[in-house]
Amino acid sequence: MSRISTKPPSGTRDFLPADLARRRFVVRVIEEVFGSYGFVALETPAIENLSTLLGKYGQEGDQLLYRLLHRRDALTRALATAGVGEAELADQGLRYDLTVPLARVVAEYRELPRFFKRYQIQPVWRADRPGRGRFREFYQCDVDIVGADSLLAEAEVCAATAQVLGALGFKDFVLQLNHRQLLRALVSAAGIDAAQEGTALVAVDKLDKVGQAGVQQELTARGIGPQAADRLLELLTRDPAAGDRASIDWLRAELGPTPAAALALPALDQLAALLELLAATPAAAHVRLNPALARGLSYYTGPIFELTLPGLAGSVGGGGRYDNLIGMFGSQPIPAVGCSLGLERILLLLEERGLYPTLTTGPDLLLCWFGVELDAVLRTAHALRAQTLGGRGLRVEVYPQAAKLAKQLQYATAPHATAPHATAPHATAPGVGLPAVAILGASEASAGTITLKHLASGQQRTVPLAEASETLQGLALTPPALTPAGS
Amino acid sequence: MSRISTKPPSGTRDFLPADLARRRFVVRVIEEVFGSYGFVALETPAIENLSTLLGKYGQEGDQLLYRLLHRRDALTRALATAGVGEAELADQGLRYDLTVPLARVVAEYRELPRFFKRYQIQPVWRADRPGRGRFREFYQCDVDIVGADSLLAEAEVCAATAQVLGALGFKDFVLQLNHRQLLRALVSAAGIDAAQEGTALVAVDKLDKVGQAGVQQELTARGIGPQAADRLLELLTRDPAAGDRASIDWLRAELGPTPAAALALPALDQLAALLELLAATPAAAHVRLNPALARGLSYYTGPIFELTLPGLAGSVGGGGRYDNLIGMFGSQPIPAVGCSLGLERILLLLEERGLYPTLTTGPDLLLCWFGVELDAVLRTAHALRAQTLGGRGLRVEVYPQAAKLAKQLQYATAPHATAPHATAPHATAPGVGLPAVAILGASEASAGTITLKHLASGQQRTVPLAEASETLQGLALTPPALTPAGS
Repeated sequence: MSRISTKPPSGTRDFLPADLARRRFVVRVIEEVFGSYGFVALETPAIENLSTLLGKYGQEGDQLLYRLLHRRDALTRALATAGVGEAELADQGLRYDLTVPLARVVAEYRELPRFFKRYQIQPVWRADRPGRGRFREFYQCDVDIVGADSLLAEAEVCAATAQVLGALGFKDFVLQLNHRQLLRALVSAAGIDAAQEGTALVAVDKLDKVGQAGVQQELTARGIGPQAADRLLELLTRDPAAGDRASIDWLRAELGPTPAAALALPALDQLAALLELLAATPAAAHVRLNPALARGLSYYTGPIFELTLPGLAGSVGGGGRYDNLIGMFGSQPIPAVGCSLGLERILLLLEERGLYPTLTTGPDLLLCWFGVELDAVLRTAHALRAQTLGGRGLRVEVYPQAAKLAKQLQYATAPHATAPHATAPHATAPGVGLPAVAILGASEASAGTITLKHLASGQQRTVPLAEASETLQGLALTPPALTPAGS
Repeated sequence: MSRISTKPPSGTRDFLPADLARRRFVVRVIEEVFGSYGFVALETPAIENLSTLLGKYGQEGDQLLYRLLHRRDALTRALATAGVGEAELADQGLRYDLTVPLARVVAEYRELPRFFKRYQIQPVWRADRPGRGRFREFYQCDVDIVGADSLLAEAEVCAATAQVLGALGFKDFVLQLNHRQLLRALVSAAGIDAAQEGTALVAVDKLDKVGQAGVQQELTARGIGPQAADRLLELLTRDPAAGDRASIDWLRAELGPTPAAALALPALDQLAALLELLAATPAAAHVRLNPALARGLSYYTGPIFELTLPGLAGSVGGGGRYDNLIGMFGSQPIPAVGCSLGLERILLLLEERGLYPTLTTGPDLLLCWFGVELDAVLRTAHALRAQTLGGRGLRVEVYPQAAKLAKQLQYATAPHATAPHATAPHATAPGVGLPAVAILGASEASAGTITLKHLASGQQRTVPLAEASETLQGLALTPPALTPAGS
């Protein structure tokens, strides 16, 4: 018998409770930090008009857009068109990133504050080839300040994202800093023609992966002379141990009175000022100037930055100033600085490095019952749920049908649902089970008491129902009397 | 000049910060209550295979599915097919509801607990004609217990959803209760042929809207004899003032030893037992038996229920037992009870009835500055953000560029972004502005102090920086010295 596959479509994922607990923990930390910086939340629809999306991500991006097929008459009409193709078959698609929707929102709502500090954490869709850590449906996490042209905006965005990484437990991350105009100036100063700037930067962008010799080869392969390639690498890769301010002074001196200096000097001044500002923020210990930082996207206009971890290829986030993009749907340019955190990557790294705190996924206890009426079970559950534990309501699952007590207790200790794809597909990592059970028998029901059993320690106490939560906390703190079974 | 529209696509919405604050408040209340009942969160992808979705929602549902157009070679091949239609052009689509994904998840992951109590709050997509309160992209909020066949499951689902409505501030809601098998039995007892059961129930479902006379007309129009129609209405609409138990006894007596009684009596027994159980839960004061409650969906197999508000057409939620659906992707039926809350409708009603608490959307204060270095501004912002207010970090927006103090203060009092579609499209409801500003001038910077100004009261104090949050709370509590300007 051929059965329908029940796996989620390739490149998409189901988030089971334990997995979701980790995702929500991270999102909560991010929202708290961004909120403390005065950023507010925005959400936009998954569906956008293709007129909004097309042409914003380059030709490759256009091909990766998910398009929504016309229906009924519109589909019939489209199929009757000579040479029908995707342009005729769809006029809406799925959100590809969070920046174009932001630009649309900024153009649409006049009531937004002049300085719009927003964060947005939502899924985006790309019809890319799925792979390890690469999905077709995945979350982006963007934070942007729209409307401000001062370096304070750069400083605040860098500080906020650095503080997020710190709050999540990353200690050794680096905030690499560069400037789009400095990069252009250095390419020009190396004697590379402006027409070759793009191709040169694509090569430079690989420095991380292929090293200096690799980039040199790549530059040559792209038609850049060996002398220019040498000089470019010299300008871009001065020993960072010299210190950022020394590097800036060295670059100023190297460029001297060349024509490239006219472009480079304001950029170097901005970098020097930004370094000084960041020294007053939580990013202070993490900042490092990196003149070779290119970042792929061509839309940046000023300072750019990237958050990296030692030993990790690629980044966990990055951004910069892009003053020509947010105004694209309006009549004038609007300055903007933003950063995108690689949420999926961050989740993976927290997992790999064991940085997650203990997260309770499910209920605090299972209410087991025998020899009592069902309404007594419900009344007891209600009384337990009205109690608080750690500032929130006690979470109580009721064993949902009659069964022997041993069976109910066994259910409480059995592993719970775990994330099927947290580390490997269908890993059967042991679940946490439940920390405790409450037992309601005839004697408890008539006495208004409840028996609480802490499963790890095996400790058990019968107490007045009203003292259940308090007792539970005491039991959880008591060291186990015996080595717990099965540990 | 023809400009691209920056409105979200028809039937979809942008959620601006103030709107999102309300949505998140409601979701948080729901999650807290569901969590206290031991329900855990599940999320599934927006994209599902059409093999999963098709045929699950009837012919009409299939037509409302959003389908994702094939790309590249797959599209070319599809277009080359003779008589190409939507079946050839797509094999994936957007999630239409949260029940079919739940069934898929239950079939896929063996590690799920035997009794899977999950809630799921995610958007779904339907290519329906948009209208007031009807969207193409909207959130559903489902809560289900999978795997349990005891009435405890019904009682817990009803109790949890009733508690949600109570926690949101609805006092007068009614939990209407019926049983699918009772309904079938009463249709049969009225002398209506089993083949006409479906059409008869469609008519009965309109009782709310068209009244008894209207339903009678409708039944006749659907080919049901006047005598049968009369008898059906008599059985379904006994004066509810008689009390639920009396109604059950009356129905038992009316059916007597008819063949229909064999179906009706177990259902009546279950309803009587469920009424007794619900009396022990937060639903107690709200439950009412309604033998005419039909609910549109044909997949229910046992008790059904609906949450209504007096004077409101339609419901704010509903559900029931459906023992034949969750197992559809596996080899055997799996019992299930669930309820879907009408999240969009609840949001609208909370708005209309003024039931939202005051929700702070943005920062607690704007840091205004003049005559100081930028790094001092950032240091001060950081010191403020490290302070707490009401259990969370103080939320501080920094005025992001140099400007006259008057201009900065004006920015703080100006209305903030409001929800453009909360009550009417593009209503320009006044925003809340910011409650307070912090002012950092040269004297404050050198003395390590900050000047705080509460905007509503006009009260102002200069205090050591470390006392800012504490002072702010004091200022907010102080009654205004003068009538605040503009109020």
